[in-house]
Amino acid sequence: MVLQFTSEQHLDDGVLEREFTLGEIPGILWTPASAPAPLILLGHPPLGLLKMYPRLVARARHAAADGFAAATIELPGSGERPRWAAAEHARADLRRAIEAGEPVSDEIIDALILPLVDKAVPEWQAALDALLSLPEIGGPVGYSGGVISIGVRLVVVEPRIVAAGFFAGSFVPRAMFEEARQVTIPLHVLLQWDDEGNDRQAALDLFDAFGSKEKTLHANMGGHTGVPQFAGDTAAQFFTRHLK
Amino acid sequence: MVLQFTSEQHLDDGVLEREFTLGEIPGILWTPASAPAPLILLGHPPLGLLKMYPRLVARARHAAADGFAAATIELPGSGERPRWAAAEHARADLRRAIEAGEPVSDEIIDALILPLVDKAVPEWQAALDALLSLPEIGGPVGYSGGVISIGVRLVVVEPRIVAAGFFAGSFVPRAMFEEARQVTIPLHVLLQWDDEGNDRQAALDLFDAFGSKEKTLHANMGGHTGVPQFAGDTAAQFFTRHLK
Repeated sequence: MVLQFTSEQHLDDGVLEREFTLGEIPGILWTPASAPAPLILLGHPPLGLLKMYPRLVARARHAAADGFAAATIELPGSGERPRWAAAEHARADLRRAIEAGEPVSDEIIDALILPLVDKAVPEWQAALDALLSLPEIGGPVGYSGGVISIGVRLVVVEPRIVAAGFFAGSFVPRAMFEEARQVTIPLHVLLQWDDEGNDRQAALDLFDAFGSKEKTLHANMGGHTGVPQFAGDTAAQFFTRHLK
Repeated sequence: MVLQFTSEQHLDDGVLEREFTLGEIPGILWTPASAPAPLILLGHPPLGLLKMYPRLVARARHAAADGFAAATIELPGSGERPRWAAAEHARADLRRAIEAGEPVSDEIIDALILPLVDKAVPEWQAALDALLSLPEIGGPVGYSGGVISIGVRLVVVEPRIVAAGFFAGSFVPRAMFEEARQVTIPLHVLLQWDDEGNDRQAALDLFDAFGSKEKTLHANMGGHTGVPQFAGDTAAQFFTRHLK
């Protein structure tokens, strides 16, 4: 797939922000003044790039201040990208279960997450192919945040990613635990301990399952979206240790 | 109790190391060149100051490099200090249980830990009285490491301690969970995820019980004594955030 830049903007801290399309997929690339730079892929929840932009640009600026380029792409079925019926059904089932106060079944979690993983991972790999061909992007590559199941599959199938920071805050299909055992790169896993919408035990089980010799779990208070500033700083130090 | 210095030594990085006695209790104080300095109390397992010295002096140097004084005292029943019969019996029961491959009962844990907590905590408070009267020690005070139940009781009863770094690697009596709920200061808790001699679930339950609004759990690989270097650095950043 061909990467085409569609806009370009210099942010006030010297970071160059460029929107691009990769085939039909929108994306954003942030590069620091120093080039070539190692790259961090910024994962995010399936809420659309537009809605996620404030948090993404903050993470990208932080990465750029540490000397990293950062890039992200729209997830399948998010933003302006076409929905698919099965995902819409799964989302409706999820809403019904939550509103009825019922536990979210494995069937709903599988229908919600597995097709998203299947679709998203090859797109992140295509983005990586295109981004690594740019002269301003060097290696190595890290992956940070987003839907944890996408991250798990991506780092299992993609040897160019050498370190990953995961956010253990989304549903995890049973099948992903087997894939987690195949992860061997250094991991930095964030968990919001008091995230009421999250299955804490599943997050701990997933952390336990990772095959990596270096894996760190950082659990903090503050609710799903309340990751403390110092936790972001520690995650940045993780990438500096492994990508520099 | 009166604090009397018994030896004095300048370490090569400008840190002044002084041994002292507090009544019958031996202790060590390390001070950086900058004074008055905030103080970190260095907890340690009940193996005797002599045996623990290499790790304690490394932690003290790290603290001094960040501008902190550090101090520690011998635990009751450790080093040259008199044993008491009940603790010796509890230790023998523990050895028997472990050698027989049996689970360590609540009775053994209580007998092993609760009297140690009862005896040690007032001694740490007496040390704090004496240390805070020295002109080279300012506030605030942090507590770091050691037998976690001693740390929990100490920070509940001692309002001069404003932040604590705990190591969740020792047996926790059931009674301590109730005390943990009374802890409200910022906490930084280290857990060695693959520490086979430790009850991981009890450590997670204890972390959950802490009443603090700011509490962070850092779980790493490397076994009981294999806390990675970067975990020490992050703990140091925690104290810099809260004691400066």
